[in-house]
Amino acid sequence: MDADVIVAGGGVIGTAIAWRAARTGLKVILVDPGGGDPVNDDPRTSDRASLVAAGMLGPVSESVFGEQDLLNLNLHAIDRFPSFNAELEQAANTTTGLRTEGTLAVAYDNGDLAALDRLTDFRHSIGLKAERLDARECRRREPFLAPSTRGGVLATGDLSVDNRRYLAALRQAAARAGVATIKDKATEVTGTTLRTATKKLTARHVVVAAGHATRAIDGLPDEVRKAIRPVKGQILRLRHPGNLPHILTHTVRAIVQGHDLYLVPRMDGELVVGATQEERDDRDVTAGAVHDLLRDATTAVPAVSELVFAEASAGLRPGTSDNGPILGLAGDGGPLIAAGHYRNGILLSAGTADAVTALLCGQDPHPAWLPFTPGRFRKITA
Amino acid sequence: MDADVIVAGGGVIGTAIAWRAARTGLKVILVDPGGGDPVNDDPRTSDRASLVAAGMLGPVSESVFGEQDLLNLNLHAIDRFPSFNAELEQAANTTTGLRTEGTLAVAYDNGDLAALDRLTDFRHSIGLKAERLDARECRRREPFLAPSTRGGVLATGDLSVDNRRYLAALRQAAARAGVATIKDKATEVTGTTLRTATKKLTARHVVVAAGHATRAIDGLPDEVRKAIRPVKGQILRLRHPGNLPHILTHTVRAIVQGHDLYLVPRMDGELVVGATQEERDDRDVTAGAVHDLLRDATTAVPAVSELVFAEASAGLRPGTSDNGPILGLAGDGGPLIAAGHYRNGILLSAGTADAVTALLCGQDPHPAWLPFTPGRFRKITA
Repeated sequence: MDADVIVAGGGVIGTAIAWRAARTGLKVILVDPGGGDPVNDDPRTSDRASLVAAGMLGPVSESVFGEQDLLNLNLHAIDRFPSFNAELEQAANTTTGLRTEGTLAVAYDNGDLAALDRLTDFRHSIGLKAERLDARECRRREPFLAPSTRGGVLATGDLSVDNRRYLAALRQAAARAGVATIKDKATEVTGTTLRTATKKLTARHVVVAAGHATRAIDGLPDEVRKAIRPVKGQILRLRHPGNLPHILTHTVRAIVQGHDLYLVPRMDGELVVGATQEERDDRDVTAGAVHDLLRDATTAVPAVSELVFAEASAGLRPGTSDNGPILGLAGDGGPLIAAGHYRNGILLSAGTADAVTALLCGQDPHPAWLPFTPGRFRKITA
Repeated sequence: MDADVIVAGGGVIGTAIAWRAARTGLKVILVDPGGGDPVNDDPRTSDRASLVAAGMLGPVSESVFGEQDLLNLNLHAIDRFPSFNAELEQAANTTTGLRTEGTLAVAYDNGDLAALDRLTDFRHSIGLKAERLDARECRRREPFLAPSTRGGVLATGDLSVDNRRYLAALRQAAARAGVATIKDKATEVTGTTLRTATKKLTARHVVVAAGHATRAIDGLPDEVRKAIRPVKGQILRLRHPGNLPHILTHTVRAIVQGHDLYLVPRMDGELVVGATQEERDDRDVTAGAVHDLLRDATTAVPAVSELVFAEASAGLRPGTSDNGPILGLAGDGGPLIAAGHYRNGILLSAGTADAVTALLCGQDPHPAWLPFTPGRFRKITA
């Protein structure tokens, strides 16, 4: 027995689980091909969706009508996030760049305005705060918005966090809590044994939290592996040159020529622009995606063209066949799975760590997780 | 006396001079802050215009009407280039990616077509080959050109070279010929003495070939320093993904929405897209420039959007007040200057190395260089 818990996967999900499990006193080993090596944090070399994210924490704007279970889960997750983040910042003795100004969704035509009105009504119906603003009010709060802005809605409950600082803080906290990291790639899991290319590790519990790579691990139920799909996302990181004041305060969302666009400002002058959603599993940054994101961003906020182009990167979000995450035991005596977090990995990380730690300690996770067990993909063949 | 010749500046101009001088038997020291270190070849950290270039060798298309002296010089330079390049490839035992398919200039409207006709007439008048092609012929030769292409002109005499391979070959040849490299920055030159932050070097001849940084070296005549100006250029490097055949064979030039655009294909699948010309001296890559280059490139060749976005970089071309290079002695007993090559550094490097080596050996350079002495910037105050 090498540990109480082995976690396969060192992104935000796996690292959050490892930290929280170690904090309860369990001996934890984290297995990841990057191994937490800062060099491997380069999104050009690291296959890690956590690095290619904007860090938006907007449970409603990331859900679509009809995904009520997922919305419930996201609302539970955002309730939990600030306290979890505060504990994390204390444990890691660092900051994660949490921002609380909220999200300003803007409209450019009557169709956009009508869609925003429906979203506002929906937000109000579930008790969230969302304030309808006319064009003048939008530009008073964000003076660099394009003059063509017709109006918008300010969602004051939305948060954002610097996803890279957040992952670095989780690593730091995990290391301080005694988590041991092994730089290797999980290839097979059977019950409480995890194999890598060179090692065989055993523990009381194995947790698979390997994102889209979960589908490549032998021994997991076929229906779970098949339910996971990679969804490519390309994203830009811009920076303010020294002489320019920050051009945005809120996260700004818009639909530009039919494309969903978001712009997420950071305290340190970074502006993240995202993102594409492509049903592909390569990680090439394409000229077309960079062009389209810059075109849409400069349409929404023309001063974006003055910013420094710092990085374009592509990652693979772990989508599932019903767009919901997967959390629970994979069959009797099988490993625990915490994967398929799709576009909500950062948001759901705190809640996922709580839920998995509860299961490891023989307790029930929060009921919002109930619809998201691995068993839901099993075909009824009776 | 530390050497026969000290060359300040390790871009294509300084390195070509150092190589050719060493080949004549002179003892040569090359002084450069990057020091020929491959790590410093990263255009994000190295202040070297040679790395941020497309390698087009098109003497006519890079000249404008009215710059007859510069055109003469460029024509002399391109005559010399292939034999120089062949000697270089042999000396360095490598290839520089010389391409000889020529440049296809394309037009999108009647105004573009008329401008191309004038260029064709001009090329014919100076004995160059340029063939007028209708739209069908353009797209037969370059099938990925936009359907809106109206016609074009094929300049068969134009060449291109991989600027990074070319600089690497020059370095290799220089090292093999015995050139010693000192990693340091020239700060002051007086006659035959060169000072750096930490050293004082003397030689029979000092050659200053420091590009735009030449203006920052103390001891050079004020009028020469003032004549040099940095002209920022931003450029993109795209790559073909594995499954895509190369989308261009010729260098393609176009005017898109008033912007001059060029696309230079390499044998290894790289496609260079350039470039901006900005009267600025920062090296920030901006979101606006990346957007505009991608917009124009996809307008001219829509399939560009399928390519992988590999790099965006910015460099400072060493412009001068009359756009011509500077070559010759800076006053009696002063250093030799070979700087201010603006957009023609690669093209002029072979001819510059010949001319400076001639001067070092007490001979006259080719007469095409006569209009480009440092003395031309001296005010007549009699």
